Amino acid sequence: MSGNGTSIAEGSLVLLHFDLRRQWLLRVDRSRQFHTHKGYINLGDLIGKPYGSQVKSSLDQIFWALKPTTHDLIMHTARRTQIMYPKDIGLIILKLALTAGSKVLEIGTGSGAMTVAAAMAVKPTGHIHTYEARKEFAEIAERNLKRASLLEFVTIHNADASAGIDGAGFDAAVIDVGDPWPIIPHIHKALAGGAPLVSFSPTINQVEKTTEAFTQGGFANVHTLECFIREIRADTGKTRPATMMVGHTGYMTFAQKILRSE
Amino acid sequence: MSGNGTSIAEGSLVLLHFDLRRQWLLRVDRSRQFHTHKGYINLGDLIGKPYGSQVKSSLDQIFWALKPTTHDLIMHTARRTQIMYPKDIGLIILKLALTAGSKVLEIGTGSGAMTVAAAMAVKPTGHIHTYEARKEFAEIAERNLKRASLLEFVTIHNADASAGIDGAGFDAAVIDVGDPWPIIPHIHKALAGGAPLVSFSPTINQVEKTTEAFTQGGFANVHTLECFIREIRADTGKTRPATMMVGHTGYMTFAQKILRSE
Amino acid sequence: MSGNGTSIAEGSLVLLHFDLRRQWLLRVDRSRQFHTHKGYINLGDLIGKPYGSQVKSSLDQIFWALKPTTHDLIMHTARRTQIMYPKDIGLIILKLALTAGSKVLEIGTGSGAMTVAAAMAVKPTGHIHTYEARKEFAEIAERNLKRASLLEFVTIHNADASAGIDGAGFDAAVIDVGDPWPIIPHIHKALAGGAPLVSFSPTINQVEKTTEAFTQGGFANVHTLECFIREIRADTGKTRPATMMVGHTGYMTFAQKILRSE
Amino acid sequence: MSGNGTSIAEGSLVLLHFDLRRQWLLRVDRSRQFHTHKGYINLGDLIGKPYGSQVKSSLDQIFWALKPTTHDLIMHTARRTQIMYPKDIGLIILKLALTAGSKVLEIGTGSGAMTVAAAMAVKPTGHIHTYEARKEFAEIAERNLKRASLLEFVTIHNADASAGIDGAGFDAAVIDVGDPWPIIPHIHKALAGGAPLVSFSPTINQVEKTTEAFTQGGFANVHTLECFIREIRADTGKTRPATMMVGHTGYMTFAQKILRSE
Repeated sequence: MSGNGTSIAEGSLVLLHFDLRRQWLLRVDRSRQFHTHKGYINLGDLIGKPYGSQVKSSLDQIFWALKPTTHDLIMHTARRTQIMYPKDIGLIILKLALTAGSKVLEIGTGSGAMTVAAAMAVKPTGHIHTYEARKEFAEIAERNLKRASLLEFVTIHNADASAGIDGAGFDAAVIDVGDPWPIIPHIHKALAGGAPLVSFSPTINQVEKTTEAFTQGGFANVHTLECFIREIRADTGKTRPATMMVGHTGYMTFAQKILRSE
Repeated sequence: MSGNGTSIAEGSLVLLHFDLRRQWLLRVDRSRQFHTHKGYINLGDLIGKPYGSQVKSSLDQIFWALKPTTHDLIMHTARRTQIMYPKDIGLIILKLALTAGSKVLEIGTGSGAMTVAAAMAVKPTGHIHTYEARKEFAEIAERNLKRASLLEFVTIHNADASAGIDGAGFDAAVIDVGDPWPIIPHIHKALAGGAPLVSFSPTINQVEKTTEAFTQGGFANVHTLECFIREIRADTGKTRPATMMVGHTGYMTFAQKILRSE
Repeated sequence: MSGNGTSIAEGSLVLLHFDLRRQWLLRVDRSRQFHTHKGYINLGDLIGKPYGSQVKSSLDQIFWALKPTTHDLIMHTARRTQIMYPKDIGLIILKLALTAGSKVLEIGTGSGAMTVAAAMAVKPTGHIHTYEARKEFAEIAERNLKRASLLEFVTIHNADASAGIDGAGFDAAVIDVGDPWPIIPHIHKALAGGAPLVSFSPTINQVEKTTEAFTQGGFANVHTLECFIREIRADTGKTRPATMMVGHTGYMTFAQKILRSE
Repeated sequence: MSGNGTSIAEGSLVLLHFDLRRQWLLRVDRSRQFHTHKGYINLGDLIGKPYGSQVKSSLDQIFWALKPTTHDLIMHTARRTQIMYPKDIGLIILKLALTAGSKVLEIGTGSGAMTVAAAMAVKPTGHIHTYEARKEFAEIAERNLKRASLLEFVTIHNADASAGIDGAGFDAAVIDVGDPWPIIPHIHKALAGGAPLVSFSPTINQVEKTTEAFTQGGFANVHTLECFIREIRADTGKTRPATMMVGHTGYMTFAQKILRSE
């Protein structure tokens, strides 16, 4: 990233920022005008400028061409499915030790929000194998990964993982499907000894069933967390939290594979 | 990680797990016995076994030799200072896009919890330059990084960053000192255009001052979040959240460097 | 309440309930039809029926005529001002020991949500003296109290309390104005020895100033709380918290009047 | 309360306050010395003084004789059982419209924390009928109610409510037992039409079963809430939330009795 990547080129991803509520993730295309309520911007004008530069709209409003982060890539993933939020994904990356070179198994690609974050964490030498049974989601995820220039680090299997998982020795697994239980024996087999995994569950009943399945299926250190995030509107002399917050996305049940003594 | 790293060797880090409340991060040393209330374990017995293996104590109790994750490395960092928690650090990694190759500036090493996580995220090709004015903390952090085999990815500057920062073009910055304001101009200069940064503040007053300093000091997209985590005790038929939770660690104020038009 | 009050009469308040998202607080008027997307109801049909009865709309949909609670009275108070929520008010009633016979001072009536709850708590022998400088809010509050049949337990002073407070020996005080500091000496004088009070503050800066003003102005036991509430969508086999929640209404700073030794 | 009650007498309840962490609920007894790490106090010295007065210990430390609130009575209830917290009870009082004159049914007295709060809310003309099957808890609750001078407003039934409930036309019901389901038909019969009730459940599984039992047992408006409270340490220039907070006490499932059409 450093050295290169700080200057905007044709095809670069840019976070076009007006203010906290108005910002867009865009791919630079010299032939495109981007229209907002604050006027339009010729995206070609960004080419050659360093990230962090100012650009003015046709209505002389100031926008900033910021560098997108993993957080932006996740939040701007097309949301046809409920997605895990950065608050959840960040914790998962630490608890699963996703790092350059990790070989990760994902069950339930959805629109690819977690896949994008995992690919960012493991590139350039790691790889994500992700399973998605529904063709339309596999395609959405592929587009999202391509847009984020991460497709080379991911293999999307448009298949039902309950029929079996290719490969073995995975360093970690992420599960985000409604009924993971029939797949758990396959996942156990595919993981390396001691490897961590997580299952994301919108309902508490899924948490109970997953906890049981992990505990009985050859995993230890089984525990569940939920994560909340609240925005603080800091403004000297009148600082207060935001009125509304997300109260729930899902529960995360973590565990680690153990080897049964024979 | 995959392929290698799944078998325990002399010098390997192991998470020795008895149950959720009793687990220890250990370095394997064939000459060492590890004593617990459930009996002692000869650490040499672990050598050659795959991670995930069972080991019995002198009292015939079952322990598991799990693979430590980034989360474990953070939580077992010697706590002479208040540390950021994984809930905070995970979000920071996503919002700062810390990934293999990133060149990161850290102000306020403390005992190195964030440094460990950042080094895990940027290795093997990235690097962390971290400043710590207090000699004893610089030493603690060095020990923690060494234990986690991450010291090669980190340069610890035992210096006050308000006197100036070496280098430029940093991809991201993490600030964890009580009074970052005099250092902010140096940080701005050291960052690449558009680069994200975060300042961690235990008090709301620090948040206000940091927000002002960022807004006036050449940063955009300034916003503050706080993160909560709650443990769910899942047990079929009697599932409930844990009675106590951490109510506060600190606030995270994020921003991105902008280039003032001259 | 018991014995009487369980049968609906002309002029009774009714909570007309269709489902959790569609319920209305109504006063029964035999000449009125109430229109909903599920058909209309002749309110006169409710007269003489016990609370808890079923009533069918013109489209043969089932509605329930429930008895309104204090919670409903608060939540259906006209919201021209930001109001305290039941989560806050409930705690205030306990921490201020508002009970039958209490004589309560309120600074900042707003639309009367807190006033309604306080009047419910102290009736029939207690009384609320509430100050509201803005004429239009004093009128809104009067209408809300009248609708709730609580006006006889309340005196609304359309006056600025910083000019002075009538009466003395109040058992408790509730403050809900943006800048209570000039009024605090008057409030101290008006309260009985040892009496509890609360100040409601949307911003953390108001909390700081109020804490200082209380501590220096003759109060002890000064402490601040914030309260969160989350809805759980219980549905056997697919139970989960609601996606959105209110993240902030305001902070409550509590204290008790002390008598300076002379 | 006002007029009388502001001067301390033999037998009065006093909240003896040193600081936020050191305060005690005491009954004044002229023959008693109360010992603390800050010296002892002759309780007889308080007699005749107004609430809010200062009293000095044998070590010349300043204590304050504050007036106890409902909150203090709840929190100082002997905790042999898990109790509902004021955050929960305050909301219950509003959602059940507990007010002077209410006739309340309680199933599961425990040590009487909720009973104390309910009696405070309904006195002097209302009454609480509370059922507690375990003799030792019925006795603890009786002592707690007596200490709070509330016993005359409460009838403690040392009996199992599943065998039947005396009386009818109750205005509201509070349920705090682990397995309320067999009792629910009795409770339905005992309540007035439209009357609100709540069941307090430590586990989510109890919530599911209670929701089903309410929905199928003649109740409408069935919904569940959980409440959190967080302390803010306000101190000008270094204000922050408390590090630890209570993450869970229990869930509250509310409903209202409906009359099935025959």
